[in-house]
Amino acid sequence: MNNSSMRDVSIVGIGQIPVLKESPLSLRQMGVKVVNLAMASAGVTQVDALFAGNMLADELQGQKHIATLVASEAGLRGIEALQVRAATATGAAALRMAYFAIASGEADLAVAVGLEKMSSGPATPVLAKALDADYEVPTGATLIGQNARLMQMYMAEYGLEIDVFNNFALNAHRNCRHNPNALFKDKAVTALMIQNSRVVEPPLRLYDASPVCDGAAALVLAPRDEARAYTDQPVRILASSVATDWMRLEDRQKPLNLFAAQLSARKAFRRANINPADVDFFEVHDAFSIMACLLLEAVGFAKPGAGWRLAVDEEIGWQGKIPITTMGGLKARGHPIGATALYQTCEIVLQLTGRAGEAQLKDANVALLQSVGGAAATVITHIFSN
Amino acid sequence: MNNSSMRDVSIVGIGQIPVLKESPLSLRQMGVKVVNLAMASAGVTQVDALFAGNMLADELQGQKHIATLVASEAGLRGIEALQVRAATATGAAALRMAYFAIASGEADLAVAVGLEKMSSGPATPVLAKALDADYEVPTGATLIGQNARLMQMYMAEYGLEIDVFNNFALNAHRNCRHNPNALFKDKAVTALMIQNSRVVEPPLRLYDASPVCDGAAALVLAPRDEARAYTDQPVRILASSVATDWMRLEDRQKPLNLFAAQLSARKAFRRANINPADVDFFEVHDAFSIMACLLLEAVGFAKPGAGWRLAVDEEIGWQGKIPITTMGGLKARGHPIGATALYQTCEIVLQLTGRAGEAQLKDANVALLQSVGGAAATVITHIFSN
Repeated sequence: MNNSSMRDVSIVGIGQIPVLKESPLSLRQMGVKVVNLAMASAGVTQVDALFAGNMLADELQGQKHIATLVASEAGLRGIEALQVRAATATGAAALRMAYFAIASGEADLAVAVGLEKMSSGPATPVLAKALDADYEVPTGATLIGQNARLMQMYMAEYGLEIDVFNNFALNAHRNCRHNPNALFKDKAVTALMIQNSRVVEPPLRLYDASPVCDGAAALVLAPRDEARAYTDQPVRILASSVATDWMRLEDRQKPLNLFAAQLSARKAFRRANINPADVDFFEVHDAFSIMACLLLEAVGFAKPGAGWRLAVDEEIGWQGKIPITTMGGLKARGHPIGATALYQTCEIVLQLTGRAGEAQLKDANVALLQSVGGAAATVITHIFSN
Repeated sequence: MNNSSMRDVSIVGIGQIPVLKESPLSLRQMGVKVVNLAMASAGVTQVDALFAGNMLADELQGQKHIATLVASEAGLRGIEALQVRAATATGAAALRMAYFAIASGEADLAVAVGLEKMSSGPATPVLAKALDADYEVPTGATLIGQNARLMQMYMAEYGLEIDVFNNFALNAHRNCRHNPNALFKDKAVTALMIQNSRVVEPPLRLYDASPVCDGAAALVLAPRDEARAYTDQPVRILASSVATDWMRLEDRQKPLNLFAAQLSARKAFRRANINPADVDFFEVHDAFSIMACLLLEAVGFAKPGAGWRLAVDEEIGWQGKIPITTMGGLKARGHPIGATALYQTCEIVLQLTGRAGEAQLKDANVALLQSVGGAAATVITHIFSN
């Protein structure tokens, strides 16, 4: 790639609302609220462009023109507005598009907003459309089912019991207690609760999966060399990258090696000119505990088959070698699909600027974000620094 | 906007297949076919990124991960793949995103692909989701209905009869006869047929609306300074811009003034550093004849209330002052939503490189493309030159 022409990009404003099982706000109201919050935090009343991440509104709200709707309802008549998608990685796609707009010089202020209202209808069959509609879904495949398969394969391959995964959920639930926007912030979760939780799809248990919920989050992006006009604490986007794998799990020679995650991470590390060892914390796509485990391996924080050890050894905690889900992750903050990566980025901004409150890490200077579409057919990586 | 950092972008390959009422190919097969055709025409076997435009697959094919699916099925494992949308302007959004990728330096070769298979199910209720799902659709609003309202308003405002619109359809059908990919290439259409055609929603007649159909088209984009490595006849993208209006027709003070079209065109002309008078032909979004008429006015080719005169006076024909729909337009080539703007761009490339055959314009050096989302709530403008 030719980088000579790119502008550096910074985040200059964030906006988020509490993740809820069922929000009293409509989808559009959630979107407008976080756009306004993010713009207020950047001290701006106008932007050039808005990129919206949403996966399910087509079916759940009957809406296929969501970016322009949110821009219009926010009073931002005239601005550019587009929707972008990458199945369950959709929020990160909106972030990438806003990044494109600033990096290319096409916009000087851009909003990335993610919004999802999953309480409006049965979400599971709609989520399954992230898989191959012709060859996977007709056989009964769902996202939960594919992740259960990966978990089964992993346990068989390395001779492991299900309980090696317990700490992924435990860590997420512990960390979310200090996040005012987390769905489960008031819920005390113990190892025993996880251990005894209902098996949803063998071997995957309730606590191995993230919850269906409502939420929205937004960011304001600007060129790095103008960022301090908007905030004293801009956060740099050091890299943004997307990679894909064969669409179907069946077509992958080594399904436990998340090729798209590995490739996307490599591209991002090269672009940021850093190594995995430089990462202070990792907001991982823990939609399922097996996915968190496999991503830790794909990025290089553990060897293949050893990701679970980071959990068992508490290395994923705030004091560990590689803290993950520092404010609850998808598992405990919640996973309102199109909004998820924007929530994660808001939390990263709080950590990198020393505003994460009780959840604040001691050394938080470089953050990694990965977002997974479908059964890791699309993986989007972002790297940030203060 | 700061343009200093942008790379110029060129089109170096095109691929299209015939628009059909019902394609024997599946949605993915159509997408793969045009991606392969476009890549072959650029002489490449690999690209960095693929951006897919599709509006209806969520409901009609049960597929929400279409960009990665097409990349995977085309054998392009690993590359970036994202889906982008702007309701009925979705194809142009894919083009804009590929443009972003090249302009920003994030990709050196990018595919924009549009694909739509409308024959898989009843498309009309799904298309209505381009409108406001909470405040317009529940009252029975559809895209046809909103365009019929605009047509009615226009006729009332300027005291016109329906037949002033006849030449929009007549011109499109005449021009499509020389386009091997046009849906209606074998159909001889006369003014009388248009005049006597069934009223679909008063006053809008069958021939005032574009047809439901299947199709796919793709482009390969590269930095301008590398374009000649791929083709002897690259086509430059002089400008790309998006603008929005209030989402609902009801909220617009002057609904006949297409604010988003006007603003988007102005931004594009400024960026391209040209005037409307420099445009040799205009691939207009003639999903409805009233929309073609209003866009001619919004861009500045006619004063408000005078767009219809360009049709009546034959100024929109190949020999006219401002030729439109030179290879059939949405009306007669067909309007497979997510693919439409990519078809239009393929045709623009053929015109600008002297390869449009019997449809070839004499002077074709600067082309304008506009794409309309919903009831002109989003309008995307591109300008091209040879």
